[in-house]
Amino acid sequence: MSGENFWYSKPARPLCEASLQQAMARQQQLTKPLGALGQLESLAVHIAGLQASETPHIGKATIDIFAADHGIAVEGVSAYPQAVTAEMIRNFARGGAAISVLAREQGLPLAVHNLGTVADPEDLPGVTQYHLGKGTANFLHAPAMTSEGLQRALAVGQQVASERAAEDVDLAIAGEMGIANTTSASALACALSGFPAAILVGPGTGLNADGISRKITVVEQALAFHQLANQSPLAQLQAVGGFEIAAITGFFISCAQQGIVVLVDGFICSVAALLAMRINPSVRPWLLLSHLSAEPGHSIVAEAFMFKPLLNLGLRLGEGSGAALALPLVKHACQLHTGMATFAEAAVSTAANGSLS
Amino acid sequence: MSGENFWYSKPARPLCEASLQQAMARQQQLTKPLGALGQLESLAVHIAGLQASETPHIGKATIDIFAADHGIAVEGVSAYPQAVTAEMIRNFARGGAAISVLAREQGLPLAVHNLGTVADPEDLPGVTQYHLGKGTANFLHAPAMTSEGLQRALAVGQQVASERAAEDVDLAIAGEMGIANTTSASALACALSGFPAAILVGPGTGLNADGISRKITVVEQALAFHQLANQSPLAQLQAVGGFEIAAITGFFISCAQQGIVVLVDGFICSVAALLAMRINPSVRPWLLLSHLSAEPGHSIVAEAFMFKPLLNLGLRLGEGSGAALALPLVKHACQLHTGMATFAEAAVSTAANGSLS
Repeated sequence: MSGENFWYSKPARPLCEASLQQAMARQQQLTKPLGALGQLESLAVHIAGLQASETPHIGKATIDIFAADHGIAVEGVSAYPQAVTAEMIRNFARGGAAISVLAREQGLPLAVHNLGTVADPEDLPGVTQYHLGKGTANFLHAPAMTSEGLQRALAVGQQVASERAAEDVDLAIAGEMGIANTTSASALACALSGFPAAILVGPGTGLNADGISRKITVVEQALAFHQLANQSPLAQLQAVGGFEIAAITGFFISCAQQGIVVLVDGFICSVAALLAMRINPSVRPWLLLSHLSAEPGHSIVAEAFMFKPLLNLGLRLGEGSGAALALPLVKHACQLHTGMATFAEAAVSTAANGSLS
Repeated sequence: MSGENFWYSKPARPLCEASLQQAMARQQQLTKPLGALGQLESLAVHIAGLQASETPHIGKATIDIFAADHGIAVEGVSAYPQAVTAEMIRNFARGGAAISVLAREQGLPLAVHNLGTVADPEDLPGVTQYHLGKGTANFLHAPAMTSEGLQRALAVGQQVASERAAEDVDLAIAGEMGIANTTSASALACALSGFPAAILVGPGTGLNADGISRKITVVEQALAFHQLANQSPLAQLQAVGGFEIAAITGFFISCAQQGIVVLVDGFICSVAALLAMRINPSVRPWLLLSHLSAEPGHSIVAEAFMFKPLLNLGLRLGEGSGAALALPLVKHACQLHTGMATFAEAAVSTAANGSLS
């Protein structure tokens, strides 16, 4: 399953080098000391390259939450019962979750994609049901999903990204919900990074020390059982991944192929982003990391991104909430780059030594 | 000049302990793991205490920029010529500066207060002229301002804060503009913190190594000339401060007295906040630090605040721009706290061990 001929191996839209250069030149003319807007300057210049425009713009942004249950939950690796996955899908739909509040306040469309939960999915407005199975298999004893299940989950992400492209979305946020999915993401992070479980595994939604020990053992057993170290990223994803993680991986790849900037949420979405980069390295410039979460493994996975995270607030909620919180910064970076006056326009003197820095 | 009987010594509005307790209890009922929103949870609870409401709300927010020139600029301590202070006032008024863009995009009223510039101030919409003098005196040879000038500058801040209180403003941002004002702020930070100039002085808008050495020498000479170490904060402010720094100090104190939450910008505004806390310790809970700037002295001054900064993006622009960039996070913290469903409302199961953490 090398995947060379699959849709997810097609190259991402390339950066426009001329727009990058023009945007860098523009930054030097804006009425502020060069570099005074810190990370926001390089971010705006980068998005100029992605959008092939000297004046980048984030107009339409959207949030898609991908949810699924995980067979590994029976091993007692989460502080919450498995019923919470379906209950939170209902909470998203009814507007009570953190991401619902953030979407409402920022006027962002929010769609929920249920790949497969243990509890029977009910019809809810804004929730699409995909019925890939009642969650994944317990990956201590079998691959989490079949090869067909993996391809279907990746394709859900591709399909949703194509809908967003058709709607002329400039920036996409993915969120996830799935009880026990930090265990799946931690196993994938170990397999992808080579770091041991004892370093990468954390409390997730709030395990105590005993729970974390159990979670470390589960991940170590899974890594050994599937001999993950020498597998392809797709094989690793099939063995210990989750339907929602696979869908997000496909979503990220397809967004990058269709020219949609991606703002990546916390630990689990970052693992999906790392999978996307390993499956298709050309997507990397399109994946911007929104924040550094409190989950200890995140700082290791975060190294894979081209840019530093924008926020570091000790968030560990998921749902896309960290990305939604960082979105105004990305918009402001572009608005400042595009909307500020130049020294010449404003008749402001430049630095005394003739340099702008 | 101890100031005990002056307006700025009257206590700030006290926190409501009952609202703090109610808000903490509410946080434990929201449909997320306790602590999963990191710093934003303690921020929302704190604002609940400030606003004496279980459900805090940041509706109306405003930006006031205080500008003035500095006599110390003749010592070659800035990368920019002094004309830039007045030029940037014009740029604020015409909408071309970074803070103009941020105010416009967020729909925030922006007012500019010119305490006194070397260049003749012209009439500009949104700019109030106070005529305290053509900048401060060169504090290498004399106090930066007279006792009367200090009182007038502080009173400008009080007057502006009272206008904001009359407009029912929930959150106030102050910004500053004044060529050479990082030299004034660095001298004040040395005097207030006891740290040496070699640690606290930085590049400001972009000095090179020679310029920084000159700036360190200037600050050391000023500290010795005015014997600042053993002076009251008001005496220190008169000796080496700036009109705009004094106005912001008065503004912060008056906001706290009138129950307006303050979101403090970078290095210079943080020095004003530290002065406000030294003059009147009761104001401290009202002063929230928006970001940690790239100016090296800021991390030392930042220790004075009750809460950690929200952003750390390498910003070093001033104008209130860092506070404006952090404002959406403060609003979102309150919106999440107030707008999310509780476990009971959403019929979501709590953690398996019966604990929510």
